Amino acid sequence: MLKYQAPLRDMRFLLNEVLDYPAHYRSLPNGADATPEMVDAILDGAATLCEEVLAPLNASGDAEGCHFKDGVVTTPAGFKEAYAQFVAGGWQGVSFPEEFGGQGLPMSLNVFKSEMMGTANWSFTMYPGLSVGCINTLMQYASAEQKAAYLPRLVAGQWSGTMCLTEAQCGTDLGQLKTRAEAQADGSYRLTGSKIFISAGEHDLAENIIHIVLARLPDAPAGTRGISLFVVPKFKLNADHSLGERNAVNCGAIEHKMGIRASATATLNFDGATGYMLGEQNKGLEAMFTFMNTARIGTAIQGVCHAELSFQGALPYALERRSMRALSGKKEPDQVADALIWHPDVRRMLLTQKAIAEGGRAMIYSAAQIADKMFSSLLAGDQLKYEAYDSELGFFTPILKGFITELGLEAANLGMQVFGGHGYIQDHGMEQIARDARIATLYEGTTGIQALDLLGRKVLLGSKGKCVRDFTGTVLRFARPHALSRGPLGKMARSLICRSLQWNLLTTRLLLRSARDREQVGAASFDFLMYSGYVMMGYFWALQAAKASQLLAAGGGEAPAEFYQAKIDTAEFYFARLLPRANSHYAAALASTASLMQTDKASLRIN
Amino acid sequence: MLKYQAPLRDMRFLLNEVLDYPAHYRSLPNGADATPEMVDAILDGAATLCEEVLAPLNASGDAEGCHFKDGVVTTPAGFKEAYAQFVAGGWQGVSFPEEFGGQGLPMSLNVFKSEMMGTANWSFTMYPGLSVGCINTLMQYASAEQKAAYLPRLVAGQWSGTMCLTEAQCGTDLGQLKTRAEAQADGSYRLTGSKIFISAGEHDLAENIIHIVLARLPDAPAGTRGISLFVVPKFKLNADHSLGERNAVNCGAIEHKMGIRASATATLNFDGATGYMLGEQNKGLEAMFTFMNTARIGTAIQGVCHAELSFQGALPYALERRSMRALSGKKEPDQVADALIWHPDVRRMLLTQKAIAEGGRAMIYSAAQIADKMFSSLLAGDQLKYEAYDSELGFFTPILKGFITELGLEAANLGMQVFGGHGYIQDHGMEQIARDARIATLYEGTTGIQALDLLGRKVLLGSKGKCVRDFTGTVLRFARPHALSRGPLGKMARSLICRSLQWNLLTTRLLLRSARDREQVGAASFDFLMYSGYVMMGYFWALQAAKASQLLAAGGGEAPAEFYQAKIDTAEFYFARLLPRANSHYAAALASTASLMQTDKASLRIN
Repeated sequence: MLKYQAPLRDMRFLLNEVLDYPAHYRSLPNGADATPEMVDAILDGAATLCEEVLAPLNASGDAEGCHFKDGVVTTPAGFKEAYAQFVAGGWQGVSFPEEFGGQGLPMSLNVFKSEMMGTANWSFTMYPGLSVGCINTLMQYASAEQKAAYLPRLVAGQWSGTMCLTEAQCGTDLGQLKTRAEAQADGSYRLTGSKIFISAGEHDLAENIIHIVLARLPDAPAGTRGISLFVVPKFKLNADHSLGERNAVNCGAIEHKMGIRASATATLNFDGATGYMLGEQNKGLEAMFTFMNTARIGTAIQGVCHAELSFQGALPYALERRSMRALSGKKEPDQVADALIWHPDVRRMLLTQKAIAEGGRAMIYSAAQIADKMFSSLLAGDQLKYEAYDSELGFFTPILKGFITELGLEAANLGMQVFGGHGYIQDHGMEQIARDARIATLYEGTTGIQALDLLGRKVLLGSKGKCVRDFTGTVLRFARPHALSRGPLGKMARSLICRSLQWNLLTTRLLLRSARDREQVGAASFDFLMYSGYVMMGYFWALQAAKASQLLAAGGGEAPAEFYQAKIDTAEFYFARLLPRANSHYAAALASTASLMQTDKASLRIN
Repeated sequence: MLKYQAPLRDMRFLLNEVLDYPAHYRSLPNGADATPEMVDAILDGAATLCEEVLAPLNASGDAEGCHFKDGVVTTPAGFKEAYAQFVAGGWQGVSFPEEFGGQGLPMSLNVFKSEMMGTANWSFTMYPGLSVGCINTLMQYASAEQKAAYLPRLVAGQWSGTMCLTEAQCGTDLGQLKTRAEAQADGSYRLTGSKIFISAGEHDLAENIIHIVLARLPDAPAGTRGISLFVVPKFKLNADHSLGERNAVNCGAIEHKMGIRASATATLNFDGATGYMLGEQNKGLEAMFTFMNTARIGTAIQGVCHAELSFQGALPYALERRSMRALSGKKEPDQVADALIWHPDVRRMLLTQKAIAEGGRAMIYSAAQIADKMFSSLLAGDQLKYEAYDSELGFFTPILKGFITELGLEAANLGMQVFGGHGYIQDHGMEQIARDARIATLYEGTTGIQALDLLGRKVLLGSKGKCVRDFTGTVLRFARPHALSRGPLGKMARSLICRSLQWNLLTTRLLLRSARDREQVGAASFDFLMYSGYVMMGYFWALQAAKASQLLAAGGGEAPAEFYQAKIDTAEFYFARLLPRANSHYAAALASTASLMQTDKASLRIN
């Protein structure tokens, strides 16, 4: 059975050697406490929780699923006890301010913790994960009294939170939403309507659930400009903030899903539930999306999680399972057959998984530094800096969410493939990873939505290509000094220089074309996203290879020499066998819009 | 809920207009009965069975799964009645000889029927599907008496069959198998051992189950040269062929699988079970693989089935579900939002599904003509011709099985993606398709095994590239006359000419390299397979576009003009947006073997 081991070696390589997190933390106003010792303690502590408490519940949670009866949701056996341990360890509060009972550490530490938790047990991680969005929203938009009422117990994990957006008729297109909120004499609102797909919307882990809800006032304008934001607790609070009577929000059902079955996905019926407005009226959608970048990066992590877990499952199997002889000659002549690992195509699959897991991790840990600076600016009240960092992060977000989750699904499927037919049966845990991974390209904005956000909003409209120029500027500054060197690093650097030019060329061509063809953005967006992802991941692989080479030449770093050599090798693999996929996305992104749009919709299938 | 409609229009376009099946049948010794009227009756009859009987059981069969208790397997509600209708309709016998009660029609008619059945309900189709391999094996290797005993009731569908190869320690590497067969005084054998992953190994649909089993004689040489083939009935037969006592073969368990849950995958324990040898001793593996090409094409169909079904689910959803406004301006201003179909990226997904389903269908229907000729030669006793056609089919087989099932999985996942979050919940049936489709790249030889078969056995060792030259010769003969013409067909033809040259170049380069690097074949095989698939599918799309253009120019064919226009459009889409993927596979196939092999296996992950 699959056994999770936190990839601490790789995490520390990125933190200490590639991305210089110690210096990064020293530069942050709220980074003083994030000393190397503190970071180590958090990594080790989270690893223990994940390996010993959460991972053992992953398969059983999937097999049992959540139970629903008469509005009550019961999580699978062991979840309640595990959540209690999570709360007792103070894990929810790592990156939240001390005034609300958190540890006040930079947001990135929450990312590292979430990655380990998500790999060990993604379904479990959804429950505290949804609270993060709720807490961030309250911190930004709640009154002082509301903060005092909700935040300490949310930050402690004693209560959990949700984000209630989707309704049956709309997910992406929230302008269609119908839930109504009517003002009451006491300043509260009565909410009526039904929300679907609410993760952690109802469960038995926490004493109270705080719902952040999008709804319309009676006189609100139609569409997205008539949406307001409300906080609706499952149990209303008494004046002393103790739990009062049950609010009129009830779980009508939970979904039967392909995967993440231990995560309750609720239909919530608001039948005149009492709520309180957050922020300004009719500005709810903006408020809800304030932390969209971080929320989406929280979902991007899932790609890394499932690539990592599937790799951890497939690698030992490939080392142990014996099948056929290597075409290049017997490798283990005293055995009945050679291990799978000797077959080049099995290595192709394993290296693809490794490249995705470790490359995706580097991308996310790098983006987490921007997120740290963004939250620091917010806490320091520096709105201008906050917006600048939010905008910088905004270029990474759709690439990370869209690209890494697509590749995470590929990696999960490759893990099954290494197992052959055994990958398809439940016993090995490999098929669960593929089912769990499948949601990641769908929720928190589908890949198609990320692609439109990237090419339409961020690259073309938002910056006329500047964000690509900025990022490739960074790539070129890294690549140029290596460009003339022999060996793998020189090759990678030259490839990155070409890709940087090509990426800007692609952007410019799409900018020009989109001015005269309004279908161009939508027609090219997916392939532009994937192209961008492959080039960006290439940069982060070269960065890792460069640091590994440097440390090897200098006689070593924290890890054994083999670790650094494998980094260089995997980077070579990536450039030789995965980066070429950028070529097909380049061609497809420049294909005519007619090739998509010319067919009459009624002709797509004539039976 | 998903509703299956047999794609008769597309099937008839391929049969009557593109591939000229009427002439093909006239040329076959056993084709006289396959008149257009007979073919129509079979297509219509199978469509009705599939739409009305099998499709309605697809979701319920998945939800219920098979039951196992004390060695007895019960199929989901309705399966027994549906199977009875299948038997009553004589559907098992369509392509089997009249002397055994079949209709004696060409094998391709079984392919068309199987495709419809498999799309409607793949799990159900597995039961009679496994019988086909059993029947073919008995027809070739059984004695006259054995044929008389088994074949009439197998051909009628009253009994079903299995193929028992896999054991816990080996699937691909059958040389490792351990099941023993000991000769008895009466000429029978006693089989002892355990087989796993036996599809249709135990169930309640048929009165008897006839197992074809690989096992070793006590004095057999080790490895693949010591394997013999046996027939082992679940119920032994009395002298008059009536059912006798229960044989000592018992179902120990059924697997819990990611998908195809209504198909029972059994562990079979042979505890001194009585069996009878088929063919020569120690030649069992060859005998088992006699019909491997057709069996693998039977699995390739699954890629088409699930691409088709997922497309049939996604298209109406995209026409009905409304989300956002088209970036190119409001399309349905009187509606709350525009339908998904107006968004270019949704069209990209739908057209990819359509291209895979209809392109894969064309590839398989073309290969089925070779299979027809192969079986005709076999029936006519012309061994030389039989082997020539088998060898011709052998080039198509790994491409069809490997490439089409990989793309079928992609198409199934795209169908979920069109649904957004709704694709992930069970109600719409889309996630079941993705789960069911996932097995296709694993069983009947993984994609990696198909790739080795193609590049190693068929292309390099078997023909020094001749089979690529032969196939591209056909492509060039088709493409050259169109090469100078304007419009989409000329463009496709020129692209195919380039790809044909490139394919041969790739083959030659790999041939030269493999002479000095024994890792080359394994390192390039997957990407060579995918490259070959994309080019081959390109040819079959151009073929369809050419016929559609010709019919449009001539004022029409069987279908409405819009049908033909959509064919041309989809071919253009394929060449513009899917065929470019061949570029990345070309690059990866030529990447150094070191990029896969240089890393020490112990260094792939150092924690």
